[in-house]
Amino acid sequence: MSTSIRLAIDVMGGDFGPRCIVPAALRSLALYPSLHLILVGSADAISPLIAAARYPSERVTLLSTSEQILADDPPASVLRGKPDASMRVALQQVRDGLADGCLSAGNTGALMVLARSVLGMLDGVQRPAIMAALPVAGHDCHVLDLGANVDCSAEQLFEFALMGSAAVAELTGKPNPRVGLLNIGHEVHKGGREVRAVGALLAASTQLNYVGHVEGDGLFRGEADVVVCDGFVGNVLLKASEGVANYLQAEMRDAMRASRLVRWVSPIIARSLRPMRQRNDPARHNGASLLGLRGVVVKSHGGAGEQAMLVAIGKAVKACEAGLPERIAQRLQSR
Amino acid sequence: MSTSIRLAIDVMGGDFGPRCIVPAALRSLALYPSLHLILVGSADAISPLIAAARYPSERVTLLSTSEQILADDPPASVLRGKPDASMRVALQQVRDGLADGCLSAGNTGALMVLARSVLGMLDGVQRPAIMAALPVAGHDCHVLDLGANVDCSAEQLFEFALMGSAAVAELTGKPNPRVGLLNIGHEVHKGGREVRAVGALLAASTQLNYVGHVEGDGLFRGEADVVVCDGFVGNVLLKASEGVANYLQAEMRDAMRASRLVRWVSPIIARSLRPMRQRNDPARHNGASLLGLRGVVVKSHGGAGEQAMLVAIGKAVKACEAGLPERIAQRLQSR
Repeated sequence: MSTSIRLAIDVMGGDFGPRCIVPAALRSLALYPSLHLILVGSADAISPLIAAARYPSERVTLLSTSEQILADDPPASVLRGKPDASMRVALQQVRDGLADGCLSAGNTGALMVLARSVLGMLDGVQRPAIMAALPVAGHDCHVLDLGANVDCSAEQLFEFALMGSAAVAELTGKPNPRVGLLNIGHEVHKGGREVRAVGALLAASTQLNYVGHVEGDGLFRGEADVVVCDGFVGNVLLKASEGVANYLQAEMRDAMRASRLVRWVSPIIARSLRPMRQRNDPARHNGASLLGLRGVVVKSHGGAGEQAMLVAIGKAVKACEAGLPERIAQRLQSR
Repeated sequence: MSTSIRLAIDVMGGDFGPRCIVPAALRSLALYPSLHLILVGSADAISPLIAAARYPSERVTLLSTSEQILADDPPASVLRGKPDASMRVALQQVRDGLADGCLSAGNTGALMVLARSVLGMLDGVQRPAIMAALPVAGHDCHVLDLGANVDCSAEQLFEFALMGSAAVAELTGKPNPRVGLLNIGHEVHKGGREVRAVGALLAASTQLNYVGHVEGDGLFRGEADVVVCDGFVGNVLLKASEGVANYLQAEMRDAMRASRLVRWVSPIIARSLRPMRQRNDPARHNGASLLGLRGVVVKSHGGAGEQAMLVAIGKAVKACEAGLPERIAQRLQSR
């Protein structure tokens, strides 16, 4: 990394706000030596947190804002109100060339709407998409869209495939990621109108390493590196996966507790399960990319703790280093 | 159970065919004393299996057929060809009043198409739906549609809610099951056009115990007894849930094997996990109901073994006892 990366972080979003995000941000400076941070939010909240910390102060700028987007602010309302909201101001740093990218743990819908409005879309992109990684069979499977777009045309789904393929190539280093279309069977006649139409576009494309239809179970067997679907299906898939995982873990915990003998050996079991837990820890996969915008925008999970926030910062740094929006624009132009 | 139940079983479908289905069917006679079976399929395959078995022969009829629907027969083709297919003949028993219901482990798409053609739809039903139970937080959550209909209108989704509510009330004994609409958020503006429209219909209905939107994770926290969605989303949800569960179980198994100490105590762990495994065993939830038809039709998983097949037979018996199609017809008429 030769040049410095400047990242604007909205520290006001998420369940824990500045007291989680500011310490994570300061820790990230040690991990990424050429990273410069613009911490955007309430000076009253940030100042005491940085006053007590040891960090290279020349690499941190504090940008004080007076307003904040709330978790239940309707996305449409954020365009009109709150001109000094931390999320908006962080995006403006990217628009004005003062930052290479921006990170927020706030309201996803508001971030999407504001990012479109403040940064604008790449040429040829109709709608931005949200992409995140699910831990699958020892590698990551990136899925998009995860909820930005509920009704998608075949053309939009095809754009998601191009953007996702370009982004995964840059973020993971796989030069030609396998792209799958989420569907309910392998036959070409499966799926609704738009899914069948995009299936034909994908199969005809020479730009993509298209592996065909991927079903809900095939995704978790690692059949593709990028899986494309509309935002309604993707969001259901993501949340249901979390739901099943949480449910099974709770069932397992209860079962283990029920036996005195198992409780006695549980430290041994816990130790042997640790690598698997770590590999599948949602915190290790924190950070969804908003693709199709004229700038790097990463969304952290609202419930992310300090460690998970560090992971999301790392994703934003990587996207900035790769010049992800430019790479996606090139891919779209060479269609 | 005062009167007898007559069940036609297509023994030719599924991964294991007659050698699994026939023994399961004969075992079911001991569980359901008033059950009479019509075993439909190749006499050559069935005869040796029943010749060797001890069972009340006066309660079993063998109906010999010469053809069979295959797993990869396109659903559309089965209407024209194979007039003597075991699946079709089993459905005809129901149509002709010779059986109260029918069970098959064969090609789902073919079963749906043939059932519509042979039995016809209940008055006022536009499309049949496939409903199955997912094990959730100590009870069952029934989800429909699971893949019969990929693009659903609001009106169809509303029908699914009425049919699902009536069916779950009859099958589980819960008089007023909680009905949820699968969505990607709790706010009324969430979801695509048809989902928003059916949300308004459901909220206005006085017939249903409607609990509002349920998200993918909320479903696995037991927020509803019946969850309504289109067949594309439902199928992805079902298969992704299986995929996550299988993935996590494999990860767990590998982790346990990696430690010699854990391998040593693994019999103790296995014993304490047994109740949880049994509660969540897919075999215990085998048997999807095809709703909206003029007759009871239950679809077993193609990979079902003997024990799982017994569960599906039990579901078919229960649906016959309850007169499920009549109950659903009444519910639809009283709208």
